[in-house]
Amino acid sequence: MKISNKHYRTIWLKPGDAKVVQIIDQTRLPHEFVIRDLKTVEDAARAIREMKVRGAGLIGATAGYGMYLSALDAGGLLSGEDFQRQVNEAGKKLIATRPTAINLAWAIKRQLKAMSDAKEIKEKIAAALKIANEIADEDARFCQTIGQHGVKLIEELSRKKNGQTVNILTHCNAGWLAFTDFGSATSPIYAAFDKGIKIHVWVDETRPRNQGASLTAWELGEHGVAHTIITDNAGGHLMQNDLVDMVIVGTDRTTRTGDVANKIGTYLKALAAKDNNVPFYVALPSSTFDWDLHDGVKEIPIEERNADEVKYVQGLENGEIKKVLIAPEKSPAANFAFDVTPARLITGLITERGICEANEQSILSLYPEKA
Amino acid sequence: MKISNKHYRTIWLKPGDAKVVQIIDQTRLPHEFVIRDLKTVEDAARAIREMKVRGAGLIGATAGYGMYLSALDAGGLLSGEDFQRQVNEAGKKLIATRPTAINLAWAIKRQLKAMSDAKEIKEKIAAALKIANEIADEDARFCQTIGQHGVKLIEELSRKKNGQTVNILTHCNAGWLAFTDFGSATSPIYAAFDKGIKIHVWVDETRPRNQGASLTAWELGEHGVAHTIITDNAGGHLMQNDLVDMVIVGTDRTTRTGDVANKIGTYLKALAAKDNNVPFYVALPSSTFDWDLHDGVKEIPIEERNADEVKYVQGLENGEIKKVLIAPEKSPAANFAFDVTPARLITGLITERGICEANEQSILSLYPEKA
Repeated sequence: MKISNKHYRTIWLKPGDAKVVQIIDQTRLPHEFVIRDLKTVEDAARAIREMKVRGAGLIGATAGYGMYLSALDAGGLLSGEDFQRQVNEAGKKLIATRPTAINLAWAIKRQLKAMSDAKEIKEKIAAALKIANEIADEDARFCQTIGQHGVKLIEELSRKKNGQTVNILTHCNAGWLAFTDFGSATSPIYAAFDKGIKIHVWVDETRPRNQGASLTAWELGEHGVAHTIITDNAGGHLMQNDLVDMVIVGTDRTTRTGDVANKIGTYLKALAAKDNNVPFYVALPSSTFDWDLHDGVKEIPIEERNADEVKYVQGLENGEIKKVLIAPEKSPAANFAFDVTPARLITGLITERGICEANEQSILSLYPEKA
Repeated sequence: MKISNKHYRTIWLKPGDAKVVQIIDQTRLPHEFVIRDLKTVEDAARAIREMKVRGAGLIGATAGYGMYLSALDAGGLLSGEDFQRQVNEAGKKLIATRPTAINLAWAIKRQLKAMSDAKEIKEKIAAALKIANEIADEDARFCQTIGQHGVKLIEELSRKKNGQTVNILTHCNAGWLAFTDFGSATSPIYAAFDKGIKIHVWVDETRPRNQGASLTAWELGEHGVAHTIITDNAGGHLMQNDLVDMVIVGTDRTTRTGDVANKIGTYLKALAAKDNNVPFYVALPSSTFDWDLHDGVKEIPIEERNADEVKYVQGLENGEIKKVLIAPEKSPAANFAFDVTPARLITGLITERGICEANEQSILSLYPEKA
């Protein structure tokens, strides 16, 4: 999508140096636009762990490129076995960075298979590059298709409202910054905007890391989409007062039965949407499905992150990015990063293959090969 | 309650100078403990508007003392009529500071009646002081009684859990800092703590002003109560995972049918409590009842505050209190301060007269004079 009218993806090979991967450092947004080089799998793992890159799709794409960087490094080894051992280790390193997003495991598995299928070390490296690019391209393509399906829902709401502004609430950043392009939850929004449909987005700030206030607001603003930042507390009040026509969020892991793990607080918005008859949609490329799981609350591991993310808030003061302590120093804090929204609260899933209900039968009607 | 083992209220007459009222400046907590003098009704209005004092009970008490300061000032006037005109104006000034808390109107009405009933100007001033003290004392006494009723609920949960820690979630600060002493939601918690019942409090940080992280965590910490700060997004996840035994919150305005307006986000927690069969209690002195209202969502005015409270977060950096910008400068934000939790989501109301259900009949059984 666009930043100051220039097109960007969130991850790419450095022009003129295919041994270096580049990313936008999302921990500096919206205040600074910084591009970082990733030269080793350790760089990639650190970027994921420190959330320089984050979001289901982008974590997968970064893991894909991380495996490629690991293959480049292992390329100096003499035997295919040693090579395979080293890239296996790299995969383990990457998978340990974040526990909830399924895309991570999926990208690494796909890379390991491709490299293992190739015979010569040179071919293995070429395969790793090819798959890394494929994962990134596919992510962008899938997200774009999600937009084409999802925009129909917005068009219908616009028609029902006789062309009056459609108000969409979103939580966290399931925007293009969370994928390689377009985003999942934002893709129908961008598609509607590009079609000239009047829309306005309520952006949950999304504590503790404020990805809504710092990333979603920024990317919507850069693209020109009308939006208003609200606290995570505000959505219920807005829905009670008919100020939300639709909710669209992303997901980091989706069970075959339609439960979704998304940024902490999503479940609360889903409850409010249900209580006020507001349609609640989850947009996802199929890479976020975990086809082995049937019960999200019981089975999806929820990452617990450092309590300092709750106690300290980052922002700009006097031209510098600083962190301020918002609580008594000696008070403990807990930092659960995700929660699970049960399928019963979800109106529908917007996937790259179309829209389905959040239940196994309807999901399998789009993905019959997983039956 | 105690601060570093010394007993404080939140508002008092300056020792040795009964023409000055003193408050704890709550905008500096938890980082700095600052006492401020209020010498005029304008000082009192500013303290309420700038949230140096906040919370249903304390707003009422400050309005009570503000009317007394106005009476002192009007004391120099020659006629009782002029006096009455000036204190009426003062009442209007105070009532314009915050629209949601009903205690404000209630305290001013009570003061105006008392002053109007007195004949001589000297008597009017004496009446204003007497009523200001009465409002403050009554608030503390009512809150203490709320604790005596509410603690029974905690004792019962403790028994059911065979003495294991009872986990209580609270939102915002309905603590002693929101009243003149004890608090509403915290009063049963302090009573349980003082009885030696094992308890632990999940403290919602309560964006945008973070009264949970900055005030509730601080006062619980000063009194020695075990607590953990969480984001406002986290409560649903905790309830889904059996980590919350009970929710207790306060209210700024309560309809005769049991709907409550409390800090924005309360409604979302009530929905989660309902969805997970967690008892959801609202603690309130009867001064927060608005006996004229029947439908909270339709009838209670919801304050909209400055958007900068959402876009900027205050905290401590390098020993200084600073505000950092957490969003793109050009992105707009909206700041609704309260939401309404419908009675159907509330397990019970804990009042100074006992515990009742959140419906008109049950409320009137405790307050038959309002039938």
